[in-house]
Amino acid sequence: MSASTARPPFKQAPHKLLVSPPLDGHDSIPGPIEVADEVLYANAHPSMSHVSPDFIPVFGDSIRMVREVLFTKDAQPFLISGSGTLGWDQVAANLVEPGEEALVLHSGYFGDSFAECLETYGASVTQIKAPIGGTVPFESIAAALQEKKYKIITFTHVDTSTGVLSDAARIAETVRRVSPDTLIVMDAVCSVASEEIRFDDWGLDVVLTASQKGLGAPPGLSILAASQKAIGVWEERKKRGVREGSYYASWGKWLPIMKAYESGSAAYFATPPVNLIYAFHASLSLILARTSPSVPSIAKRFELHRAASQRIKSAASSLGLSQVPLAASEAANGMTALYFPEGVGASDLLPRLVGKGVVVAGGAA
Amino acid sequence: MSASTARPPFKQAPHKLLVSPPLDGHDSIPGPIEVADEVLYANAHPSMSHVSPDFIPVFGDSIRMVREVLFTKDAQPFLISGSGTLGWDQVAANLVEPGEEALVLHSGYFGDSFAECLETYGASVTQIKAPIGGTVPFESIAAALQEKKYKIITFTHVDTSTGVLSDAARIAETVRRVSPDTLIVMDAVCSVASEEIRFDDWGLDVVLTASQKGLGAPPGLSILAASQKAIGVWEERKKRGVREGSYYASWGKWLPIMKAYESGSAAYFATPPVNLIYAFHASLSLILARTSPSVPSIAKRFELHRAASQRIKSAASSLGLSQVPLAASEAANGMTALYFPEGVGASDLLPRLVGKGVVVAGGAA
Repeated sequence: MSASTARPPFKQAPHKLLVSPPLDGHDSIPGPIEVADEVLYANAHPSMSHVSPDFIPVFGDSIRMVREVLFTKDAQPFLISGSGTLGWDQVAANLVEPGEEALVLHSGYFGDSFAECLETYGASVTQIKAPIGGTVPFESIAAALQEKKYKIITFTHVDTSTGVLSDAARIAETVRRVSPDTLIVMDAVCSVASEEIRFDDWGLDVVLTASQKGLGAPPGLSILAASQKAIGVWEERKKRGVREGSYYASWGKWLPIMKAYESGSAAYFATPPVNLIYAFHASLSLILARTSPSVPSIAKRFELHRAASQRIKSAASSLGLSQVPLAASEAANGMTALYFPEGVGASDLLPRLVGKGVVVAGGAA
Repeated sequence: MSASTARPPFKQAPHKLLVSPPLDGHDSIPGPIEVADEVLYANAHPSMSHVSPDFIPVFGDSIRMVREVLFTKDAQPFLISGSGTLGWDQVAANLVEPGEEALVLHSGYFGDSFAECLETYGASVTQIKAPIGGTVPFESIAAALQEKKYKIITFTHVDTSTGVLSDAARIAETVRRVSPDTLIVMDAVCSVASEEIRFDDWGLDVVLTASQKGLGAPPGLSILAASQKAIGVWEERKKRGVREGSYYASWGKWLPIMKAYESGSAAYFATPPVNLIYAFHASLSLILARTSPSVPSIAKRFELHRAASQRIKSAASSLGLSQVPLAASEAANGMTALYFPEGVGASDLLPRLVGKGVVVAGGAA
C-alpha cells in the first residue's frame, strides 16, 4: 500500500489519513503521484525550441489527447505553465466580470480557496457548505439557483482534503434544468484520469486540472478545458470591451497559441514548459493506449481504480478505520481519506506507518 | 556555432538573425537554451512530494542560490511555476495599484508587452521608446521622472528582439537621484547569469527572469527577486487593505511559502514544479561552483560570455553583417542580433544556415 500527500499541509493538526491505491504496478499518491519511467525520460528530453518542428506536433497531440481523456468533441483545452491553482485564475479572470455572481459548492478545503480566487477578481461569491464528508444536497443547489441568477457555479469533483466525490453528472443536470445559462465549472485537479468524466454527455462548461495527479506527469502544468459555450461567453465579453482580469491567465493571449499548435504551427505568447509537455504527452499516450481494438485502456483504468479503492476501503473498514466521506457512493476512487482510530494520534501512528514503507499525509478539515 | 530562438516568432517577416554564442562546451540559444546533462537528469528525478524532507532543502537552497547569482544580501526571491511572463503579472498585481503611474523604457518588443501587462492590472503607463537598436537616453529618463511621480520604472536588461543591453547601473543611478521613491524593475529574462547583475550595488528593486535562458534549466519557472524596499511597499499596501490584483501571482500567498522552504519547513499554496526545481537546483549548482578558492565560476562565466560574444560579433562584422544594437557598448553578451545582408532574404539564407547545422531565429522589430 502506498499513500498520499494531497495538497498539504494545512494549519490544523491532521486528524485524517489520506491514502491512495497503487495502480498498474506503480505506486500512487494523490499528487505529485509517482511517475512512470517513460514519463520521466520524456521530462529529460534534450532542450528543444518551443517553435521547432519536432515540438509542435507534441504540443498539438497533447491538446487533442486532453479532449480524449475528458470525452469531449469540441471543448477547448488550455495547457499553460503553472500549478493547478492557475485554473481558478483562468476561470475568475476570463469568465466572471467584476460584480457578477458566483455560486461555490463546498465539499472541503478547496471550495474556500476557489471562492477566494473568484473574489480577488471581483466576483460576488455565495458558498453552500456541506457538512464534513458530505456534499451539498441537489435540492439546495436548485433552490439557490432559483433564488438568484448566477454567472457560474463551481464545485470540486474530488476534494483532496475530504476524499469526497461529487456527483458531477447530477449537479450538471440540476443546473441545466433550473438555470440553463449558468456556466458549470468543475475543479477536477484530483480526479481527471482517475475518475470517469464525460464532459459532453454531462454538459460541463469548464474542467480544470493539473499534471501531477491522475494524469501522471510531474507538476507544473495547468490544464483546463472550456466548452464552446464558455468560449462564447468570453468572446461576447471581449466584444463589449471588458478586458480579462489577468495578463498571464488571459484566454485572449492563450487561445491563438492553442489553436496554432493544434493546427501544426507555432505561435508565441510566453515560453511553454517544453520538457514537461514532452512528459505530459508520454503520460497521455500511456493513459490512452488501446489494450484491445475495442477497449481503450482509460476505461480499464477507471475500473482498476474502483477495484483498488474497494480493496483499500474494505481493509480499512476491517481494521475499524472509518472513512471521511459520509456515504460510500460519495467516496473517491483515486484516494481514500480515513480518520485516525479513536485514541490514536499522529505521533503514535505515523512513525509506525513510515516504518512499514507507507507514506501518509495529514488531511485538511 | 549555435544560435537562437529567443521569444519568437512575431508577426512580421524576420529581417534580423538572432545568434547566441556557445559557452563552456554546451550549445547555447537564448531560450530555451541547451541544458546540461546533469540538469536534465535532475529533471527526471523520481517524483517527490513537495512536502517531503528530501525536497525541502532543494527548494530552500535554490532560493538562497538565486540571491547569490544576483549578488544580493537580502532581496526576497519568488520561485513560482510559470513562464517568465508571470514575473510581469507579479509586478503589476502586487506593486502597482490601479490608477498609479508606471514608466516603461522601451528598447524592443518586450517593453510593449510589459506595458500591456501593467495596464491590465489598472496602471497608467507612459512609455519612452528608443529607436530600434538603441536605448532611452538618461536625460530623457531624468526629465520624465522630474515631470511626474512614478510608482515604478521598468526596463528590459537585454531585449531578445533587438539584442540591446541596457546600462542597468546607470539607469538605477539616474532614478535614485531624481526620484528616489520610484521602484526600479528590471526584466532580466534574457540576461540573468549571462550578463553581470549587481542587485544591491546598483540599487535595483525587482529583477525578474525565467529558468530557460542564462540560468540553464528547462522552461517553466518564473524567478523574481524583490528588494526589502519593494516588499515594504507591498506590505504597506496590504495594511491599507488594498488587495493584490491576482490570486495565483499574489505575494501574500507566496511569501510565506518561500520563507517556509528557506527556513527548512514545507508550506502549501499551490503545488510547486518539484522536478523542475531539482533541475534548477542542479543548474544553479553548476553556475555557482567555485573554480578556485577565490574565484567563483560565475565571474568566469561572464568573462566567457563576453569573449565568445566578441568572437561572434567580429566574425559577423568581417562577413559584412551589421548588428542591430547601434552602439557596441550596448550589445548583449549572451546573444547577437544581426541584420540580413543587403539583398539577401530569409528564404535564401535560412536553408543554407540550417544545412550547416546553424539554428537561427527571426527577430521581432
